[in-house]
Amino acid sequence: MPSYEEDYSAVFVHAGAGYHSKPNEPVHLRACGDACKAAMVLLKNGGSAADAVEMAVRVLEDAEITNSGYGSNLSLDGTVECDAVIMEGGGLSGAVGALCHVQNPICLARAVLENARQPMSLKRVPPILLVGEGATMFAKEQNFPLVDNEKLISPAARQRWERWRTELRYSQPSGSVMSPTEVKIQDGPGEPEEDIVTDTVGAICIDRWGRIAAGSSSGGIGMKHRGRVGPAALVGVGTWVRVGEDGLVVGATTSGTGEHMNNTLIASKCVDRLMGSEDDLQALKDCIELDFLGAPVVKTATTAGALGVLAVKLERSGAKYKRAHFLYGHTTDSMALASMVSWQNEPDLIMSRNKRTPKVALGGKVIPFRARK
Amino acid sequence: MPSYEEDYSAVFVHAGAGYHSKPNEPVHLRACGDACKAAMVLLKNGGSAADAVEMAVRVLEDAEITNSGYGSNLSLDGTVECDAVIMEGGGLSGAVGALCHVQNPICLARAVLENARQPMSLKRVPPILLVGEGATMFAKEQNFPLVDNEKLISPAARQRWERWRTELRYSQPSGSVMSPTEVKIQDGPGEPEEDIVTDTVGAICIDRWGRIAAGSSSGGIGMKHRGRVGPAALVGVGTWVRVGEDGLVVGATTSGTGEHMNNTLIASKCVDRLMGSEDDLQALKDCIELDFLGAPVVKTATTAGALGVLAVKLERSGAKYKRAHFLYGHTTDSMALASMVSWQNEPDLIMSRNKRTPKVALGGKVIPFRARK
Repeated sequence: MPSYEEDYSAVFVHAGAGYHSKPNEPVHLRACGDACKAAMVLLKNGGSAADAVEMAVRVLEDAEITNSGYGSNLSLDGTVECDAVIMEGGGLSGAVGALCHVQNPICLARAVLENARQPMSLKRVPPILLVGEGATMFAKEQNFPLVDNEKLISPAARQRWERWRTELRYSQPSGSVMSPTEVKIQDGPGEPEEDIVTDTVGAICIDRWGRIAAGSSSGGIGMKHRGRVGPAALVGVGTWVRVGEDGLVVGATTSGTGEHMNNTLIASKCVDRLMGSEDDLQALKDCIELDFLGAPVVKTATTAGALGVLAVKLERSGAKYKRAHFLYGHTTDSMALASMVSWQNEPDLIMSRNKRTPKVALGGKVIPFRARK
Repeated sequence: MPSYEEDYSAVFVHAGAGYHSKPNEPVHLRACGDACKAAMVLLKNGGSAADAVEMAVRVLEDAEITNSGYGSNLSLDGTVECDAVIMEGGGLSGAVGALCHVQNPICLARAVLENARQPMSLKRVPPILLVGEGATMFAKEQNFPLVDNEKLISPAARQRWERWRTELRYSQPSGSVMSPTEVKIQDGPGEPEEDIVTDTVGAICIDRWGRIAAGSSSGGIGMKHRGRVGPAALVGVGTWVRVGEDGLVVGATTSGTGEHMNNTLIASKCVDRLMGSEDDLQALKDCIELDFLGAPVVKTATTAGALGVLAVKLERSGAKYKRAHFLYGHTTDSMALASMVSWQNEPDLIMSRNKRTPKVALGGKVIPFRARK
């Protein structure tokens, strides 16, 4: 059994902001829980924060119900194109965008990150963001097996695509409960039985050395244009980690209306606010309401902006003791989350639900623990 | 002749930070001057800030000497893959990354931006960043002529590529004066006669209504991996514009070691600093020295970080009067810049040169003028 000294690591994950139907709630939460447990095995065996993020996101990608990896939304022409990013507290990142033919995009993002540590000939700087065909070439060079497009398509994803295609053909833009981007359910009798989860899974992990890493992965918006890169590939937008004064470390990973998140650099804004905040939940609320919903580019857009944020703030008091603040907030109907610290046998599962009137749901907790050294 | 009321617009451009050889200095500056003059024609005829940015960057792309559009660096396998972005003060942007077969990437970025204003069926959000094959598909849909890879390669770019290929083959990583990323010249007798300009052209424009837009374009680092996306495609990294309190507007466009700039979100940091600064040159210096050179991810990197920044701060005193602060700074040996305001017949051309000891060169001026309304 690990000593208290080693008993230090933590995993936080989310499986997207959107509308999670009641019948499917256990499936979403099981995916989150599985991601925590798999990542925790690595952390307990001395794995790094980046190892754990890669594992947690990988489990979520493999879960059929999430819009990432297997089961991703299809683009307009029926292709699965994925985005993924991983970033360490030190500031190094690796990312892939509009990636085809790779089973686990987060693993390729990790390979990009590891490759970026190596010096190159001719003093070239190694790439940290690879996209499209070039990203597939890199996967091949790294001996990743390339898979057929069909192998990444789940039956449910194909069904959604076929329905949307019919609707596009018959020009019924608002006829369906289930638009590719609609994440607030309508007021009215009954509740849709189908999920409307539009974006991005993510994880933030802390290892026994107090290091932090964060990552995200997404199949992107349904019926998207080929080549569209979303927040899950972009540092500062979908994922951001920063080390501040006094060893304070803050990480954030986001989900929601990608283009609005990109134009507002929302993950970096969230980290900036939490870095200086006394009241973390208020800071998160300000980020969602002012930096995102209040941004001119979101306010004047023809489409409403949806956002979900998972954030972790790691605090050092002196050299040895630390506290982690686990925070989340979303404007969508629901957001599926889980957390697990190393002295827990089972993860805490959270399906955070908002009221029907659009507002910001917030939650979180403070986890005190002690660093190994 | 335009009245004083209309006499309001301004163009600021740069043609990359790096080392500009003395013999080539006039060619670099002519490209900058031509970009200013072409953009100013649009502005004087009622064009928008975005129109002017597109035109200025387009002229720089067409200039053979710049690493953008025609004349771009080649990737390892001999392909031209370009990045470009354009962003408006309102916060909307359009960008393309790892783009092949398009003569003027900035024009396609502009088309992405204009497309992003249009609502889509099924409440989908239009893309603001398109990459690779999907970006080429979009170009075709927008009736852009697709050109052969060979048509984008200048004789000088091919020569560089052939030399680097030979050096890679014979494993002489540091044998050449002209590495694809080396932007500080070595101390020693004489000066290289060849340019070492590694990255990105950019423009910031103000139209007669006091609106601002910014953009950049780049062929990326020489011998890059296919699919590598750099700062010139990324909002917050290569280009950022923000409207603050009291109608204060700040824009920045950057050039330099792309991956380090990406991991530090450097354009957004620069705008944040200038937004609240009393001493703009000091703020720019702090951005370069603290946010960039001082960032842990840059300090611990195996390759040195180079950075050039062009920034504009537009200030409203009351409703009618304005001042524009034109600012630039770079860590590289040199940076080619130009500025032109609507009452000038000729642009001001600046080849800013640094001392050989690594330090930050800074410059700028304040331009007072009056808004139309």
